[in-house]
Amino acid sequence: MELLKHCIREKGTVVSSGVLKVDAFLNHQLDVSLLNEMGKAFYAHFGHKGITKILTIEASGIAIAVIAAQYFNVPVVFAKKAQSLNLAGDLLTSQVYSFTKQRSYDVMVSKRFLTAEDNVLILDDFLAEGSACRGLMEICHKAGATLGGVGIAVEKGFQQGGQLLRQEGVDLLSLAVIEAMSPEQGIAFGVTQQF
Amino acid sequence: MELLKHCIREKGTVVSSGVLKVDAFLNHQLDVSLLNEMGKAFYAHFGHKGITKILTIEASGIAIAVIAAQYFNVPVVFAKKAQSLNLAGDLLTSQVYSFTKQRSYDVMVSKRFLTAEDNVLILDDFLAEGSACRGLMEICHKAGATLGGVGIAVEKGFQQGGQLLRQEGVDLLSLAVIEAMSPEQGIAFGVTQQF
Repeated sequence: MELLKHCIREKGTVVSSGVLKVDAFLNHQLDVSLLNEMGKAFYAHFGHKGITKILTIEASGIAIAVIAAQYFNVPVVFAKKAQSLNLAGDLLTSQVYSFTKQRSYDVMVSKRFLTAEDNVLILDDFLAEGSACRGLMEICHKAGATLGGVGIAVEKGFQQGGQLLRQEGVDLLSLAVIEAMSPEQGIAFGVTQQF
Repeated sequence: MELLKHCIREKGTVVSSGVLKVDAFLNHQLDVSLLNEMGKAFYAHFGHKGITKILTIEASGIAIAVIAAQYFNVPVVFAKKAQSLNLAGDLLTSQVYSFTKQRSYDVMVSKRFLTAEDNVLILDDFLAEGSACRGLMEICHKAGATLGGVGIAVEKGFQQGGQLLRQEGVDLLSLAVIEAMSPEQGIAFGVTQQF
């Protein structure tokens, strides 16, 4: 998606070969016009799939999901990050490992809001090794829900998460795929579908 | 706002005289149509005030803010909850006390995204004692920004946060004000402006 790539080039900062800051438009300050164009792109790809619910994870995923949900006309559920899961038995849980923070955390969704009737679109801001996405997929699986697809804003194509999901047959759409990046040389985007 | 009150009555759960669960539509599962009606109501009240930025706090405030921002056509900035603030010097910070969790936490906004040029609308899901709102107001103050107003989905009118803000002259709009609630007797709403 050219607008997103443009924002990444103009307003993103490559902190290191692994870390891209997009806090000017995607995960601290939010460019709502961009989010709407992203929502349209997700709908163009997944709109025919009978999605009944959009699933994301707090906090950065919420903005992307809720704007996109307007096109799909379905509710959003966002998974909560929990310190501990000694709560009620009505939770769907999974463990996610954050490579950025070098630690694991639990994520949870109430069973009331995800069921075997649901056809779920997972949306998130970043895909690198894919741990957060796997956590959400596990929660869908525990709910007995169908996975309709996965939509990602920025995929780090030099990490393996996206490749593995595609090999497994997941319908994965990443609006921008970064093949390589460095503070010195900037960002090289891979080929994505046209929008 | 009648639609929000209706959702609270039909889908909310009064857990105790102080705790209302709205996770079916406002802070776990998100009803996007409701969020849009809330956004319109905020715009009807604050739309003439020359707002340049909407400020909220992760995670539940993000959905409300980003949908409302479509009507104002301005960016959203969400304050991040931080474990520790030994980060860079380019942060605006404040401390917030959570009565629910009985502990304090720090919130932060990058100085790049809030400046003395900004006229800020603070949006959040709940207002009780007002600690989160005060934290965001302090961040605005530190940025030298103007506070255009505060918009809240659900005000607990039996706690003093809203009353104190109004006494100080803050332009505060709460879409639903709960005067009293209990698991036995349900919810009594106060009088709010009509939408």
